[in-house]
Amino acid sequence: MKLYADSSSGNCYKVQLLLNFLGQPYDLEEINVLSGDTRQPAFLAKNPNGRIPLLELDDGTHLPESNAILFYLAEGTSFLPTDRLQRARVLQWMFFEQYSHEPYIAVLRFWKQYAGKTQADEPGWAEREAKGYAALDVMDRELAKGPWFVGETPSIADIALYAYTHVADHGGFDLSSYGSINGWLERMAGLPGYIPIAPPPERR
Amino acid sequence: MKLYADSSSGNCYKVQLLLNFLGQPYDLEEINVLSGDTRQPAFLAKNPNGRIPLLELDDGTHLPESNAILFYLAEGTSFLPTDRLQRARVLQWMFFEQYSHEPYIAVLRFWKQYAGKTQADEPGWAEREAKGYAALDVMDRELAKGPWFVGETPSIADIALYAYTHVADHGGFDLSSYGSINGWLERMAGLPGYIPIAPPPERR
Repeated sequence: MKLYADSSSGNCYKVQLLLNFLGQPYDLEEINVLSGDTRQPAFLAKNPNGRIPLLELDDGTHLPESNAILFYLAEGTSFLPTDRLQRARVLQWMFFEQYSHEPYIAVLRFWKQYAGKTQADEPGWAEREAKGYAALDVMDRELAKGPWFVGETPSIADIALYAYTHVADHGGFDLSSYGSINGWLERMAGLPGYIPIAPPPERR
Repeated sequence: MKLYADSSSGNCYKVQLLLNFLGQPYDLEEINVLSGDTRQPAFLAKNPNGRIPLLELDDGTHLPESNAILFYLAEGTSFLPTDRLQRARVLQWMFFEQYSHEPYIAVLRFWKQYAGKTQADEPGWAEREAKGYAALDVMDRELAKGPWFVGETPSIADIALYAYTHVADHGGFDLSSYGSINGWLERMAGLPGYIPIAPPPERR
């Protein structure tokens, strides 16, 4: 299989992290969003929504959306429970990630590290920062109840939420007071097959 | 089972529509987001993220996130395929809905119909409108290929995307040029068990 990705993007890193945890070999084609790679006709033919990551299966089938890719790849592994309610809980946290977390925590990282913007450049900065902290509050309360988001072992819900949380400081978020999150970040980084995210351009 | 919902919210309507398609009886507790019901301690104890819809199972378990609820309820029915790739495709469109569609099409409806705002009140209006039309473009191209988003029968991907698309005009979107979307909207409204969404406050 082949992955079209920017290795410094949290949404792409999610998929690379799971593939490494699973020991699944894959080809990687690095895509540069900033230079317009995802808006080229050849890429839009593969994903009409023009986003990465994009998974290409060996038969040429394309699957976009980071969390749908995670669900597909995790099927039949310990990273996706088989119980009906547990599976729905995994999805609950993955939809939380895309709706209540990523648009705040990832976007501030993008503005700061990729676009080189400061708070003065973006009128929506303070509101997104507040909503990002609200998401972190919800996560910290949940992680006070157990070591992982769903059940007793790490799942793709943890991988999805780890991707941008562990680099939230790149967008200016201070995680120092989030004890349960910090313990969980350490557990994630200690899993066999763990790989770090590539640094964003400003940090290279 | 019991559903905490605002029947005029597309995210809540999704769940009510599926429950009606399935002929599944449920209790409904109407929640008023505008008057702060979801910020009360009693509600936050049920869903720490303070959002509706929220499903309560008969054993008292709570499941939030509209699309996770859809996935849970559709398991074992024709609205969720069993094939691994088809299931991932259903999720692909549901994550597309929450990330690339709802934040634009639902938010403009909310601003206009609930908050009584106009374009002059919100500096981000034009950008959200453009991104909403971009999502509609992607949907229209996909629906030119077949009657439903995934496979030959309606799935929870169709239900998730129908909820805010069929009332996109409430936020000022003009769907008249989207031929494939309009055909699909008619097919959805013709399914057995179909119910309309409740009107937003400004339209009552």
